[in-house]
Amino acid sequence: MIIVGEKINGSIPSVSKAISEKNADFIRNLAKKQSDAGAAFIDVCASAPGDAEMEVLAWLIGLVQEVTDTPISIDSPNAKHCAQAIRLCKKPGLVNSVSGEGTKIEDVFPAIAGTDWKCIALLCDDSGIPKNAEKRLTVLETILKKAETYKIPSSHLYIDPLVEMLCTSEDGVAVVLSTIKKIKERQADIHVIGAASNVSFNLPIRKYVNQGFIVLAMQAGMDSAILDPLNRDMRGLLYAAEALLGQDEFCMEYISAFRAGLFGT
Amino acid sequence: MIIVGEKINGSIPSVSKAISEKNADFIRNLAKKQSDAGAAFIDVCASAPGDAEMEVLAWLIGLVQEVTDTPISIDSPNAKHCAQAIRLCKKPGLVNSVSGEGTKIEDVFPAIAGTDWKCIALLCDDSGIPKNAEKRLTVLETILKKAETYKIPSSHLYIDPLVEMLCTSEDGVAVVLSTIKKIKERQADIHVIGAASNVSFNLPIRKYVNQGFIVLAMQAGMDSAILDPLNRDMRGLLYAAEALLGQDEFCMEYISAFRAGLFGT
Repeated sequence: MIIVGEKINGSIPSVSKAISEKNADFIRNLAKKQSDAGAAFIDVCASAPGDAEMEVLAWLIGLVQEVTDTPISIDSPNAKHCAQAIRLCKKPGLVNSVSGEGTKIEDVFPAIAGTDWKCIALLCDDSGIPKNAEKRLTVLETILKKAETYKIPSSHLYIDPLVEMLCTSEDGVAVVLSTIKKIKERQADIHVIGAASNVSFNLPIRKYVNQGFIVLAMQAGMDSAILDPLNRDMRGLLYAAEALLGQDEFCMEYISAFRAGLFGT
Repeated sequence: MIIVGEKINGSIPSVSKAISEKNADFIRNLAKKQSDAGAAFIDVCASAPGDAEMEVLAWLIGLVQEVTDTPISIDSPNAKHCAQAIRLCKKPGLVNSVSGEGTKIEDVFPAIAGTDWKCIALLCDDSGIPKNAEKRLTVLETILKKAETYKIPSSHLYIDPLVEMLCTSEDGVAVVLSTIKKIKERQADIHVIGAASNVSFNLPIRKYVNQGFIVLAMQAGMDSAILDPLNRDMRGLLYAAEALLGQDEFCMEYISAFRAGLFGT
């Protein structure tokens, strides 16, 4: 699993406080710990309004790069800011995110064309989140066509099938699992990523719902996730799921991760 | 999920000690606690050699029936002892187990024919555990044919596809998941049960492997399991998996179980 470490996010109260107090050590520490725990990308989300966002993003990205070589995931609802922040990064990372909405793709794809930058693309567009898998796949076709125009290889795309709340769903997670399978059938080298914890919004003891979901999503073909890499229970479960799904012969990776102290006591 | 509570088993050191010391309260307490936690059957395994087994089974079954109405699961490698122990039970329960081996089926099926007793049947025979799903299904056909002879409805059968150790497996759990799916395709009203924790033998921090397995097995069609109903993490995950798999509309069961204190703090 490709893990995008989610902990540096201005919508988390402790991070918001660190940003307003300019507590650099707090941010550096979060970056270092996530990197040590095996995050492939360190997500950086300012969660600040308007122009203030770029200033916060620049500060956060600078701090992360002081302590780790792990690439940055630039997380902003403003695709233009994502494209601008690329210039602040020492090495290629991940843009989080574009979708079929507005000009997001045109804002970002030219900036990553011909580079090693990767990009998360959400399967929604100006009409919202499509209800079924078929319609989400239509958005995927639009995204793939535009990627082709900019000669961005499909292996650079991380498709987010859009994980919705289970508690208001009528068919469980069937739509999202079916979407994941169809994405991989359409284009095997494309990555599928998800904000797994969305599934458990408004439910008690969310970890059980998150755990169950991630196993089902991995079986369907999800190969990356935005999550807390310091959550040792989730790390253990991810390694276990890879072994169960036949992606870890004789559980060698599972056993090595345990020995390296990534999970267990 | 139909849960068979596994805690009264003479192979567990504390239970073995209680048996040798005739500590009736210890056994009664295990029965009561598992029943309160929602076990559908209380498994009773003497794990005693030869003729001593019947004596221990009788003592255990008597104690369980003093404190709960939850039916007994009679657990013995000796099918003749299973059949004998049926007479000790006040209400129909579960025989654990028969298989295609030797005369096990002939020892048990006549005793449960025409009753409400259920029976676990393992998909192995005198040549051992078949390597692939197709061969396990051949054993299922033999079992179904014999059930028909004795007019035992297929809904009274709990088929165990045989969960093997992951750490020595070359294809993860693919064979067992495929076997589960084929069983349900063959006969939808048949139950599929598993000793889920077998999957994690010889691995560190077994709970992650057990958790991942149970989610995958439930998706494939497993609807019952022999496990510890007092394990609150497993209970939470089982309710979550049912909701994720669309078996719990709007998570009402999940939320009710949480409110009833079956999981969470």
